[in-house]
Amino acid sequence: MNTLWSDKARSLKPYTAGEQPKEKMIKLNTNENAYPPSPKVAQAIMQATADLRLYPSPDSDALREEIAKHHGVSPSQVFCSNGSDEALALCFAAFFQNIPRDEDKTNWFPGAAAPFKLRTLDVTYSFYPVWADLFDIPLDIVPLKDDFSVDVPKMHGARGVVLPNPNAPTGVALPLSDIESIAQKTEGVFVVDEAYGAFGAKSAIPLISRYRNIAVVRTLSKSHALAGLRVGYVVADEELIGALNIVKNSFNSYPLDRLAQAGAIAALRDTEYYDQTIREIIHTRTDIIGALYAMGVKCLPSHANFLFVKMDSVPAVEVFQRLRDKGVLVRYFGGKRTKDYLRVTIGTPDEMRAFLTALKEII
Amino acid sequence: MNTLWSDKARSLKPYTAGEQPKEKMIKLNTNENAYPPSPKVAQAIMQATADLRLYPSPDSDALREEIAKHHGVSPSQVFCSNGSDEALALCFAAFFQNIPRDEDKTNWFPGAAAPFKLRTLDVTYSFYPVWADLFDIPLDIVPLKDDFSVDVPKMHGARGVVLPNPNAPTGVALPLSDIESIAQKTEGVFVVDEAYGAFGAKSAIPLISRYRNIAVVRTLSKSHALAGLRVGYVVADEELIGALNIVKNSFNSYPLDRLAQAGAIAALRDTEYYDQTIREIIHTRTDIIGALYAMGVKCLPSHANFLFVKMDSVPAVEVFQRLRDKGVLVRYFGGKRTKDYLRVTIGTPDEMRAFLTALKEII
Repeated sequence: MNTLWSDKARSLKPYTAGEQPKEKMIKLNTNENAYPPSPKVAQAIMQATADLRLYPSPDSDALREEIAKHHGVSPSQVFCSNGSDEALALCFAAFFQNIPRDEDKTNWFPGAAAPFKLRTLDVTYSFYPVWADLFDIPLDIVPLKDDFSVDVPKMHGARGVVLPNPNAPTGVALPLSDIESIAQKTEGVFVVDEAYGAFGAKSAIPLISRYRNIAVVRTLSKSHALAGLRVGYVVADEELIGALNIVKNSFNSYPLDRLAQAGAIAALRDTEYYDQTIREIIHTRTDIIGALYAMGVKCLPSHANFLFVKMDSVPAVEVFQRLRDKGVLVRYFGGKRTKDYLRVTIGTPDEMRAFLTALKEII
Repeated sequence: MNTLWSDKARSLKPYTAGEQPKEKMIKLNTNENAYPPSPKVAQAIMQATADLRLYPSPDSDALREEIAKHHGVSPSQVFCSNGSDEALALCFAAFFQNIPRDEDKTNWFPGAAAPFKLRTLDVTYSFYPVWADLFDIPLDIVPLKDDFSVDVPKMHGARGVVLPNPNAPTGVALPLSDIESIAQKTEGVFVVDEAYGAFGAKSAIPLISRYRNIAVVRTLSKSHALAGLRVGYVVADEELIGALNIVKNSFNSYPLDRLAQAGAIAALRDTEYYDQTIREIIHTRTDIIGALYAMGVKCLPSHANFLFVKMDSVPAVEVFQRLRDKGVLVRYFGGKRTKDYLRVTIGTPDEMRAFLTALKEII
């Protein structure tokens, strides 16, 4: 069957995104921001519709300037992408694809003797192994410790590393000193995926001036409530940005449309609005952790806009299904180490009250 | 140098997109539509800003339904992408990547004995060889005839084919009978790139019900004046769409943002508006060809929204530069067979009068 597919297409097992339900539900399954984006975003988008006839800036020039200002870096240290998933995919290709694997092919960079493997975690973003397959990159998977924290010494000494900080779906963050030690002890590139970096963890962006091998990946989907606009970016040394531009311009010249560029700029400028919404989400998170513990439900310490929750009395898959029946959608992953957990997005206080009420009825 | 780049990044020679000038110019260099999009597009976009907090439909469900209606096919025969460049890139991966190259590895499909090469043209869209490099696909390049028409019998018997219809940058179209004969005589997939298919050439979409190996790639950039919105799509048999979905979901789950999906739907619905603007562009094209011939300037027979123009008296590169000095931007490619030509987008009648006046002064 499927005789017209390439061998590549036949070999891939694609990523499964969280469900986008058609019916009205309390949607706590894909970590969208609890609050709408700044009203200035829609205004900027409306203005940008005037020029839809014309191609957008292929390199998102004005947006890169705004991101640079936001993080105190130079625009030449910024790369923009169609969501952070595209950024991560391009990082895999630009930094880790076609690295010699045979022990005798050691021409990758001076001193690199071992065959290349990309080091990552066992419980982490499930798109990483998919990109590794897509670009034929072998993985070296380090298990999290029993408490789901990263075994930092075991991350040292790799030729390439990718991990999220805070980690997903656990929400557990590494301190910046650990990120720095991994960067120091990685021969090649260390991709730090900060998709959830705005909710309390320390960003690695200030490290890029000292470590030319750190690439920090970010998205406006969560922090700026723009999951529907698809804007991601990478902050890194110019050398790494150069590789990303080459791969991007060998794949798709114009990945960000005019409206996404304009809307993202307006969002980044409205720091007051987003400081406030992020504070509220962190505040709700603290409240919910307290309420869950009072119910006898545990969750991992979260620096993200979601909680990784463990119920002892009822199997997680059953809680997931019964919450769904009550109109509350959370995410269940299954899998050996995560089968007893649910990932629950931090919604508005009203949504979280509804979640807690439903959960209480189930357990 | 660049010791942190992957070998893949180092090996690539990226595509160079046409210039997007910062200053105000008469812009006839990247084949944007002469007219703005339907006013209904901006209205639909404004409505869609209400839900930017939420992820978009990953598979562009509603847009696929609208495209299916537009072309009289089923939604399961449609795949949406971030511009047609992304569609083409994914076609290369889904249909042509990792096809066995050694003569003894003949497991691609029954009866395929020759090593795989993707057949294409010498004068054609210059992104094709870039994608071939990105996905390690060897090319088998068939030269156009002296009059820049396709040597159809030489396209027969390949295991995979990609060509634009009409061709770019020549504008010359193949009749549907030739497209059909190539489909019949291609063992694997035949990608027909109809980026400029709305300006008078016959579409291959009606053939897909009879030829399961044809994949037709389209874009709203030119026909629907939405270059700034990045919407492309593929119409093909479900088997081919299946391969595209697998590769897409191994790269980026959500390539089209909410605004692009909503704007594209509104555009496709306003057939009256676009029938009118396309008629006007074709009308202007006829006028300009006449005016050029009256000036002793030749151009190839165009079924696109651009002309491929040849001046005998002054070298093309000099005409390009002097037009630019006069504020008229066209595209010069150089290259062995195209160095005597300029590619000129069909603008509004006013823009074309300015172009003709400037050209007259130069030659």
